[in-house]
Amino acid sequence: MSKSTHLAHRIQNLQPSAIRELLKHSKMPGVISLAGGIPSQELFDKEGLAQATQMVVDKNFNDAFQYGLTEGNVELRQQLVGLCRERGITTNPDQLLITSGSQQALDLLIRALANPGDVFVVERPTYLATLQILSLTEARVQSVGGDEHGMIVDELEALLKTTRIKCVYLVPTFGNPSGTTLSAERREKLVKLAIEHDFIIIEDDPYGAISFTEERQKTLFQVAAEMGNHENVVYTSTFSKILAPGLRVGWVILPEWMKQKVAIVKQATDLHANSFSQSLVAAYLTLGRLNPQIALIRDVYKQKCLSLSRYLQEELGEHISFNQPQGGMFLWAQFRYEFDTTKWLQQTLEKGVVYVPGEFFFSDNADKKTLRFSYATATEEQLYEAVQRLKSAL
Amino acid sequence: MSKSTHLAHRIQNLQPSAIRELLKHSKMPGVISLAGGIPSQELFDKEGLAQATQMVVDKNFNDAFQYGLTEGNVELRQQLVGLCRERGITTNPDQLLITSGSQQALDLLIRALANPGDVFVVERPTYLATLQILSLTEARVQSVGGDEHGMIVDELEALLKTTRIKCVYLVPTFGNPSGTTLSAERREKLVKLAIEHDFIIIEDDPYGAISFTEERQKTLFQVAAEMGNHENVVYTSTFSKILAPGLRVGWVILPEWMKQKVAIVKQATDLHANSFSQSLVAAYLTLGRLNPQIALIRDVYKQKCLSLSRYLQEELGEHISFNQPQGGMFLWAQFRYEFDTTKWLQQTLEKGVVYVPGEFFFSDNADKKTLRFSYATATEEQLYEAVQRLKSAL
Repeated sequence: MSKSTHLAHRIQNLQPSAIRELLKHSKMPGVISLAGGIPSQELFDKEGLAQATQMVVDKNFNDAFQYGLTEGNVELRQQLVGLCRERGITTNPDQLLITSGSQQALDLLIRALANPGDVFVVERPTYLATLQILSLTEARVQSVGGDEHGMIVDELEALLKTTRIKCVYLVPTFGNPSGTTLSAERREKLVKLAIEHDFIIIEDDPYGAISFTEERQKTLFQVAAEMGNHENVVYTSTFSKILAPGLRVGWVILPEWMKQKVAIVKQATDLHANSFSQSLVAAYLTLGRLNPQIALIRDVYKQKCLSLSRYLQEELGEHISFNQPQGGMFLWAQFRYEFDTTKWLQQTLEKGVVYVPGEFFFSDNADKKTLRFSYATATEEQLYEAVQRLKSAL
Repeated sequence: MSKSTHLAHRIQNLQPSAIRELLKHSKMPGVISLAGGIPSQELFDKEGLAQATQMVVDKNFNDAFQYGLTEGNVELRQQLVGLCRERGITTNPDQLLITSGSQQALDLLIRALANPGDVFVVERPTYLATLQILSLTEARVQSVGGDEHGMIVDELEALLKTTRIKCVYLVPTFGNPSGTTLSAERREKLVKLAIEHDFIIIEDDPYGAISFTEERQKTLFQVAAEMGNHENVVYTSTFSKILAPGLRVGWVILPEWMKQKVAIVKQATDLHANSFSQSLVAAYLTLGRLNPQIALIRDVYKQKCLSLSRYLQEELGEHISFNQPQGGMFLWAQFRYEFDTTKWLQQTLEKGVVYVPGEFFFSDNADKKTLRFSYATATEEQLYEAVQRLKSAL
């Protein structure tokens, strides 16, 4: 019997997930993966995490194993207020909702916002899992181009002349996959447009803390707050890249008008985030180890990024170009001539190296000569070897 | 500015969640809660859970803190094959997907299945969070009545004469809220109808292991398998009621044709279930402590259930009637005369006791004289006192 009629039509046309396939490849013996946005587990703060785990078992046992509040562990939300303050964000525990990683924050927000036909705008290229979430809704997706200063906000402004926009989704700092950071000027303009045209900005900020320099852009949330606006920007971040992704702890700062709606979706989805993880992160934050841990991650990723950039420049510079990332986990590159990086993957795999082909990061007008490298997981030696293998696959 | 246009229309008309309000009440000092389906934390296997946690930190550190597979921890899925076998279910790790509690299994399944206009059938009464999930889709919900033998399958058969049904959702064993168990005869008939009319059965089984007798009904999954059918029944269960809900670990057994679709939704939703919790449960299962733990829960809940039943019968028997539960966590009762249990809640709250008014468990034709008591959390003394307070509120 054919089961095709049993499937939600919204997921009918999805292609098999590239990431899933790549993860399989990247676990093959001898293959060097520059694909996943996976933190280097050599950098896990084993001592601090073990200590926090012990604290939970000793002092917070019942909270950690029992049902909790939909909005999340109160102690963790209080701690997060301080962490947000370090990022220039003024908030309070009541505005926060703890999510199962920031991936879930995106899913909850989009489910709470997307009515059939609503226009969601993404960057070109953008985070592919957000495209997956959007494909499960009946929203319409439009895209706006980017350059080395992030989303081209003038293009968005032009689009607004003809189109009512519900929501703009972006990773404004050390973007995934682009690695770029939205300039101060564009941040201001984007927020002004959001206020003027009353659309929501989802500011996805998993990487902002992983800066390779001392330069900091204000979050869009802060830019809006400084304009007196507390309704149009929704900020989300996560402990996945700065502490440990397996804990699945992220958070979202919700405008007053969205709080109850998102809580209702959260409750329907999985009741609340993992109690044990939340207690564990709350305990960890009391140890004062997070900032040294982030400093370590910044140093190590910066070195790896510099190395990968150098090898690519030296060995493949005549074939590909890229902007030097100033933070985050990704180096976004493009061939200097027409090229299909999806097809090429088969060849590089044979040589023992994988990346993510660029086309999966586009909602439309995919640029097939682009590709994303992550330098987070591989060792220095592997980065060197990976580039050699890429070269040999040309 | 009005933000109402920003909200997904599907959540526009949801009432504030009754459960959320009740949880607030039930935490007021002195209030005895018979409301939530919350396991008694006095029954948590502290020693075993602490031991398993230590095993994870010592032996599985990287798996516990790193990203994992969308389908879930391989070791846990292997263990679950054995656990399912004890429930009469033959499966293999490839058919299993680990979810963030069985709540998420329901959300994933409904999202993967529900096209606009599709008919989902629930019991009357049914689990209220499933109604919440359905209200976030554009599926149509219809209901079929129940009696002391569970869903009245003849009513479903009658409905099938006029209506194409996509999916039937039910808690066939120690139902929430009804406490009833679907009879063997109806199980067989329901599965036959599913095969004949090609609809999906979602078999939600969080309580099946918590039986107060040695009697066992076959799962619908098993009934179908014995008819040679492996496509129409989706089985989901959880560790929330037998181990610890804060871990948010549930699982679903997927027919071949649904595996990839559900995995795609899972990935978009939160990438994968909490790695730490999955490692912890897998470690716990190696200790051989789960079955003694379940035996303890069965004994304690049985005693509490008998006590609550006796007090209700003795003190309120002229006002309310109920069927004696044979397992699970809930006693479903109804007034013997017209009565509004939602309004009454205000009065019982003043006397210091809360329950869940029955009307929230109905998709339509709510029976306002019904109410749900949970005996799982309160002590024996509290159960006695609670009934006295209920009486004084009449």
